[in-house]
Amino acid sequence: MRYLEDIQVGSRQAFGPYEVTREEVIDFARKFDPQPFHLDDAAAAKTYFGRLSASGWHTAAMTMRMMVDGWSSGEATASLGSPGVDELRWVKPVYPGDTLTAEGECIEVTPSRSRPDMGSVRNIITVRNQHGETVLTMRSIGLVRRRPADA
Amino acid sequence: MRYLEDIQVGSRQAFGPYEVTREEVIDFARKFDPQPFHLDDAAAAKTYFGRLSASGWHTAAMTMRMMVDGWSSGEATASLGSPGVDELRWVKPVYPGDTLTAEGECIEVTPSRSRPDMGSVRNIITVRNQHGETVLTMRSIGLVRRRPADA
Repeated sequence: MRYLEDIQVGSRQAFGPYEVTREEVIDFARKFDPQPFHLDDAAAAKTYFGRLSASGWHTAAMTMRMMVDGWSSGEATASLGSPGVDELRWVKPVYPGDTLTAEGECIEVTPSRSRPDMGSVRNIITVRNQHGETVLTMRSIGLVRRRPADA
Repeated sequence: MRYLEDIQVGSRQAFGPYEVTREEVIDFARKFDPQPFHLDDAAAAKTYFGRLSASGWHTAAMTMRMMVDGWSSGEATASLGSPGVDELRWVKPVYPGDTLTAEGECIEVTPSRSRPDMGSVRNIITVRNQHGETVLTMRSIGLVRRRPADA
């Protein structure tokens, strides 16, 4: 088990790939973001996006899936969940047929002042498409247990 | 059509309601956030959440759906999409059976210095459950067209 003490500022982790399908882009948009440019080719052609593109929240969800798969493939972290993210940016559109990958870089590890058994970890997450273009960035915050005295 | 000039700092808009179903919570988690506490009652009972709860990204997606429905029910805004959100916070867990509502409050309207035909709008979005408890907050950023000379 990886505890707060095992997480190093500057460490990096790669996630993915995730294949973006037209079916999933439309299914997500129908449920959660039914704006015409996420649902309809003709409507999308008239916008900045140029063609059908994924909801930004779908891209965030795909990023989460890549990260959960990555975490569960390695040594487990004593995670206590996440209070949120800062500076989520949809940098470029994500299109059906794209293949996404993600990278996390740890920028801060902070023991809690009020809770001696835990601390927070901040990572910059960068998601790129198959052309190496950055499509999404965010600063994630995670809560992680400190190593118990008997571990 | 509402343009940048029509949006007032301090204006508020209510969105929702959105009924959170167990089926949708599990379906979203299977696809995008397959952590045990979003999938399995027994696993969730052992965690801080206490019982099966929605992925934070699912809550964000449900919030987007409430906002898109709200925008499309009123006068259309000359929206040019969103570059992102700041300070997204998952304040409390969201559970199957919850009924969510959202409120947006405009905190900033800024004409672009480099693009005379557009500007940005910042809103604080607050999502509450049926008990009035805040479950999610974020600061959204939207790009909106300025009123054309002939409009």
